[in-house]
Amino acid sequence: MSGEAQRRAPIGVFDSGVGGLTVLHELRRALGRESTIYLGDEARMPYGPRAAQEVLEFSKQAMRWFADPPGLATQQCKLVVLACNTSTAVALDTVRDLFDLPIIGVVRPGAVAAVSASARRHVGVVATEGTVRSGAYLRAVRDVDPLTRVTQVACPELVPIVEAGEASSPRAQDAVRRYCEPLVAEGVDTVLLGCTHYPLLRSAFETALGPGVRVVDSARTTALAVREVLESHHLLRDGDGATHRVFATGPRERFRAIARTIFGEELPTIEEAHLGS
Amino acid sequence: MSGEAQRRAPIGVFDSGVGGLTVLHELRRALGRESTIYLGDEARMPYGPRAAQEVLEFSKQAMRWFADPPGLATQQCKLVVLACNTSTAVALDTVRDLFDLPIIGVVRPGAVAAVSASARRHVGVVATEGTVRSGAYLRAVRDVDPLTRVTQVACPELVPIVEAGEASSPRAQDAVRRYCEPLVAEGVDTVLLGCTHYPLLRSAFETALGPGVRVVDSARTTALAVREVLESHHLLRDGDGATHRVFATGPRERFRAIARTIFGEELPTIEEAHLGS
Repeated sequence: MSGEAQRRAPIGVFDSGVGGLTVLHELRRALGRESTIYLGDEARMPYGPRAAQEVLEFSKQAMRWFADPPGLATQQCKLVVLACNTSTAVALDTVRDLFDLPIIGVVRPGAVAAVSASARRHVGVVATEGTVRSGAYLRAVRDVDPLTRVTQVACPELVPIVEAGEASSPRAQDAVRRYCEPLVAEGVDTVLLGCTHYPLLRSAFETALGPGVRVVDSARTTALAVREVLESHHLLRDGDGATHRVFATGPRERFRAIARTIFGEELPTIEEAHLGS
Repeated sequence: MSGEAQRRAPIGVFDSGVGGLTVLHELRRALGRESTIYLGDEARMPYGPRAAQEVLEFSKQAMRWFADPPGLATQQCKLVVLACNTSTAVALDTVRDLFDLPIIGVVRPGAVAAVSASARRHVGVVATEGTVRSGAYLRAVRDVDPLTRVTQVACPELVPIVEAGEASSPRAQDAVRRYCEPLVAEGVDTVLLGCTHYPLLRSAFETALGPGVRVVDSARTTALAVREVLESHHLLRDGDGATHRVFATGPRERFRAIARTIFGEELPTIEEAHLGS
């Protein structure tokens, strides 16, 4: 790609479902002139309970889609955000090795945000089973600060609740309260929402944890990391006319309903995508 | 340890030989009130050409020594710097899992320093064979900025040259010039000295690379990372009376001669240490 074509190219965002739309939202706030392409693997969500090998395979299929988007030859991305924590935890290094695409994950920006926010340096991480099992947040936090304590809690019920459109239900509040109990007992002062679906449950977390605990997510810091990288390579897009496309595998009706709670009336059309063989 | 005992505890520094003394030197500049314990595994250097499994085993032995330093019960460290790039590249995550010691490696601080210094974001990394083979710098640089290009060169001759006390010899200059040729040909604008021995060859690198290329190392940024972590945990030592001890396995005469070129007259006594079973 020429410099000008590269500047005009969109930023890709991938997630296992709707959760990554919270990252897309922050990206569009931080980088209003950029075009974007979102891909949600709605048909196969949630990734959290799946075996690492399967998450790796699905993540490779998604990056292959971004490297050569079917029918979108002129829409090759200049950078892709792996907005799924489980994918980042399991697959980031491998897909970076395999594809000639600059890829940014959400685990490191999340770890940086959590350590910065934590006054007493005791951080709770709530995430999917796959992310917790991978130990990716333990490693990322230790890399930023090896003296920060980390308490992890796997929350397998939460992604299905969000994807069912029940983020504001009593069932959601009840589940969040149960998952927060060990964090409150351990005395963490900051909780990182280590799954891109969880910002949709932020108020439930804030209520369950009480006013003494800060709740942070990786969406904002990831968007800032993307801006910093594009800026330093003179790859920010200038001018108007940015385009936004959203693709989903599987049922698009449910996807649209949840997306509307994030984007309100600005929701773009949701197009169909196919992953895998 | 109580808070006061922890603040008074020394900082540990480990290297395969004398190279880590360049990190110790920067630590003492940045943190003049801290006590230090240095351990150089002189008897088994260089680590660079060894198999990963062997480097891992030696690194575990060293961290076990720091966790319970023989005859130094009152000298448990509050933090240990794994100042050997090869050990960091191969063993950091494992020893962090195994030992209840906060451990800081040199790869990430080095990657941060290199990306920050590089105007055109094309970085050369010179390192041992083990470090190059591990891909640790490729991963660390991509984590900071996935669009920065990295060209790696393994330099197997350099550690033996430094350890032989020949860092200023024509042989050293010749070897450095050969290793720099592909970096000059590729047009890197910054070279990271990805081995703690190489700062002793800095002027040879600067001559071989020419005035258009910046030469950075991880010693300074690692020292600043240590200060930042200790500060944020209120673990900086106050008051006078810091003590400094240097231990080496194997031949201490050669070690002393090279250490003198780094520390001049302030060289502490070099004591004997044993690692392994």
